Amino acid sequence: MSEIVKIALIGLGTVGTGVARVLLEESERLTRRCGKQIKLAKVVVRDKSRPRHIDLPDEMVTDNLQDVLDDESIQIAVQLIGGINPAKDYMERLLDSGKHVVSANKALLCEHGEELFSRAREQGRTIAFEAAVAGGVPIIHVLSQAMVGNQITSIEAILNGTSNFILSEMFLGGRDYADVLREAQELGYAEADPALDVDGTDAAQKLGLLTQLAFGTKVSLDQFPRQGIDKLPLEDLLYADELGYSVRLIAVARLLNEQLEMHVQPTLVQLDKPLAQVSGVNNMVALEGDVVGKTWYSGYGAGQNPTASAVIADLVDTVAGRSDLIFPFMDLWSDRPARKVLPAEEIRRRYYMRFSVLDQPHTFAEMADILGRNQISLASIIQHETPESPEANGESRQIVPVVIMTHMTTEGRIRAASAELAELKSICPDPVIMPVLD
Amino acid sequence: MSEIVKIALIGLGTVGTGVARVLLEESERLTRRCGKQIKLAKVVVRDKSRPRHIDLPDEMVTDNLQDVLDDESIQIAVQLIGGINPAKDYMERLLDSGKHVVSANKALLCEHGEELFSRAREQGRTIAFEAAVAGGVPIIHVLSQAMVGNQITSIEAILNGTSNFILSEMFLGGRDYADVLREAQELGYAEADPALDVDGTDAAQKLGLLTQLAFGTKVSLDQFPRQGIDKLPLEDLLYADELGYSVRLIAVARLLNEQLEMHVQPTLVQLDKPLAQVSGVNNMVALEGDVVGKTWYSGYGAGQNPTASAVIADLVDTVAGRSDLIFPFMDLWSDRPARKVLPAEEIRRRYYMRFSVLDQPHTFAEMADILGRNQISLASIIQHETPESPEANGESRQIVPVVIMTHMTTEGRIRAASAELAELKSICPDPVIMPVLD
Ligand SMILES: NC(=O)c1ccc[n+]([C@@H]2O[C@H](COP(=O)([O-])OP(=O)(O)OC[C@H]3O[C@@H](n4cnc5c(N)ncnc54)[C@H](OP(=O)(O)O)[C@@H]3O)[C@@H](O)[C@H]2O)c1
Ligand SMILES: NC(=O)c1ccc[n+]([C@@H]2O[C@H](COP(=O)([O-])OP(=O)(O)OC[C@H]3O[C@@H](n4cnc5c(N)ncnc54)[C@H](OP(=O)(O)O)[C@@H]3O)[C@@H](O)[C@H]2O)c1
Repeated sequence: MSEIVKIALIGLGTVGTGVARVLLEESERLTRRCGKQIKLAKVVVRDKSRPRHIDLPDEMVTDNLQDVLDDESIQIAVQLIGGINPAKDYMERLLDSGKHVVSANKALLCEHGEELFSRAREQGRTIAFEAAVAGGVPIIHVLSQAMVGNQITSIEAILNGTSNFILSEMFLGGRDYADVLREAQELGYAEADPALDVDGTDAAQKLGLLTQLAFGTKVSLDQFPRQGIDKLPLEDLLYADELGYSVRLIAVARLLNEQLEMHVQPTLVQLDKPLAQVSGVNNMVALEGDVVGKTWYSGYGAGQNPTASAVIADLVDTVAGRSDLIFPFMDLWSDRPARKVLPAEEIRRRYYMRFSVLDQPHTFAEMADILGRNQISLASIIQHETPESPEANGESRQIVPVVIMTHMTTEGRIRAASAELAELKSICPDPVIMPVLD
Repeated sequence: MSEIVKIALIGLGTVGTGVARVLLEESERLTRRCGKQIKLAKVVVRDKSRPRHIDLPDEMVTDNLQDVLDDESIQIAVQLIGGINPAKDYMERLLDSGKHVVSANKALLCEHGEELFSRAREQGRTIAFEAAVAGGVPIIHVLSQAMVGNQITSIEAILNGTSNFILSEMFLGGRDYADVLREAQELGYAEADPALDVDGTDAAQKLGLLTQLAFGTKVSLDQFPRQGIDKLPLEDLLYADELGYSVRLIAVARLLNEQLEMHVQPTLVQLDKPLAQVSGVNNMVALEGDVVGKTWYSGYGAGQNPTASAVIADLVDTVAGRSDLIFPFMDLWSDRPARKVLPAEEIRRRYYMRFSVLDQPHTFAEMADILGRNQISLASIIQHETPESPEANGESRQIVPVVIMTHMTTEGRIRAASAELAELKSICPDPVIMPVLD
């Protein structure tokens, strides 16, 4: 008879239900893989009366966290509630009462990870959080174990499945943003309030966690450029394709002369690169290490089962005692000096820009002059011929799109030029500007 | 002052030199990541007088394994010599003398893994072997930790970097096999005797190891179809492309009605699938689990540094004590009944076939008749028009290629039809036949 380890589940929503199902249905499998029997002892929910998609004995379910805190026989808490409150308070109380914690909450760990990780360490407990980043893709295991021989030099990643689904469906179906967003919500990919998904916040939180692990540096979200896909017209996906690129919401953290370059932005990726080929709700992380070179990891970035797979891996690590030998050596409390984050203005890339300009003499000369004075040199320009408009009396005055690809330049110059261009009467406000991943 | 763990390196060739360099140059990094100081105490080579690409104190290097066996202060041996003899004997003696072992030797572990793993287990020692499969891609960590919640249902992989380099260079450069093989050897990708790389043996050995971990079943190489890329003409890569496929050396192990379907063959892969896009010496493993769904892992499949990265990860796991909590739970000594391997004849796929036929009346009817009688139905046919040959007096008698894509059929029917077709006078011997990965 193998030893029994009692655990509690805090939260029985999308992910919690998936985890409970694996625990109940695959208990033989899990016992074989950690030598101990994992027994689900308590489940904490907010509303006990809500119907559930899983059958649990009544006495197992409670709406009172204290029932778990008071039960010393429960060694591990799998906490699967979102947001900061009461998730933070719960996690602290669980750690203080001596439980190891498994969590999927990237918002909480990105914002309050430092305190929580330290608290766990002081209590001699562990926090495992594979499911917080990239769903079923085991990037935390990779960073904290498989890549220990390396200094990671670059992370380039697609970390938000909803955004990637929207971008790939817009392009493939020739559909607009609002239309595809609705479908994503119907399919359960996007939340009822999808703001954090599509405005880049969710991807930035995940990048924050990866950055801490890979570079031993805690970076807050306001320290790097962040932009979502929520204002992106279909038109630009089509122009990008014409130029040989796919548009993806790319999160980047890389070392550049010992500084950290970071950003989360809709980005042009050359069509033959692996990141350009990730479609639907998949995520991908491209990791470069100074010993291993470049490696890629991909799979479903969210969803009940992929996320449950990641939670179970952490739980089994914790039951087997492995988390005790992984967590203390993660780069979460580096005593080395934090790396400086490269100021946004100094980030060097190529850029895609689309302006809507009044088709009249001299407009292009004015634009080119502003770009030139800001030392932005142009690599290519697309302006498709538009039909002459008969009313215009030979002087056509239509609004026409002009698409420009720049040579290498800096975010600072692009911002300065944009400000000047916004003053021109012959150019409509709100040009679309996206960097290129090289 | 952190605890010191003494280790020995057995073999200082390509990989060994890479490992020694990381140990010496990145000792601070490694100490931080396992809490102990790893001290390279002894290096065993065959020929002490050979010049080395790394500077080591004379007294560290020996040509006598006994020096390591006798030194009780050495806790871990990193064994990086290839082949079976004396590698097997060495590993047994190292385990018997109480050392943990890290190895990259897939040939040895595929052929004698069962005995060696059991021996380690009896001695309370561990064998870690991340570097034995897919170089820098941490697929062993993924299978033994990150995917523990899953029953793996399918492995589809590119596991031999040399073969993949040759196939992608042949296609991209329009070059023939012999020409690219020479380049691969010059670049150090292919060994002086590249037979095991290009005939599919190396990939099959790696698939054998993955199969054991994923399905708890030891399969010997003669139990499944294995074919290399060493006889593949450029022509077929071009026809495949015309049909929308890329040719890759694909290793497959998947569950089909509780049986194991396995094969290593040059295979047509649809151009938009991730496996089709792997180029150069990269490897990729596509893993499907019953909880996580499909996930992909890729990176350099061989080479000094990528392989060293994998060895170091295992070494750090072993030093940190994690291997003690991973190795015993790997599916290496399943007491469950082994899964049956699906007989080759019953493997169901679509197939690509190219015949060289004498361009005369009735040839095609004869071919079609044989295929039809073997219940192979045709999905598409390519026969490009050839110029009429003037000498042929209207009856052209050239040899022309006919390319056929079949509908789903079995390996058994394909083999039966091939045998009959070989009898036809109007068809040249040795058609090219490759399965399609669906
Ligand atoms: N869904 C995904 O695909 C996914 C992927 C990766 C990571 N995650 C993360 O996983 C976590 C859980 O996500 P989810 O999608 O499973 O959320 P969810 O479906 O909204 O479920 C949340 C659960 O937490 C419970 N809960 C909320 N507040 C509580 C409180 N004060 N006390 C007790 N229980 C409380 C809810 O109880 P009631 O059922 O009674 O309301 C519900 O069962 C989040 O941090 C999320 O970011 C989710
Ligand atoms: N190369 C790769 O990219 C790669 C990738 C993955 C896995 N692997 C595996 O890693 C292992 C090592 O490969 P490698 O490429 O490093 O091989 P290698 O360059 O041929 O080096 C072999 C080393 O083993 C030593 N050696 C051989 N027989 C010995 C003996 N009887 N006693 C003591 N030392 C002996 C040799 O000593 P001398 O130097 O004195 O001759 C040499 O240093 C193999 O199992 C291989 O399959 C290699």
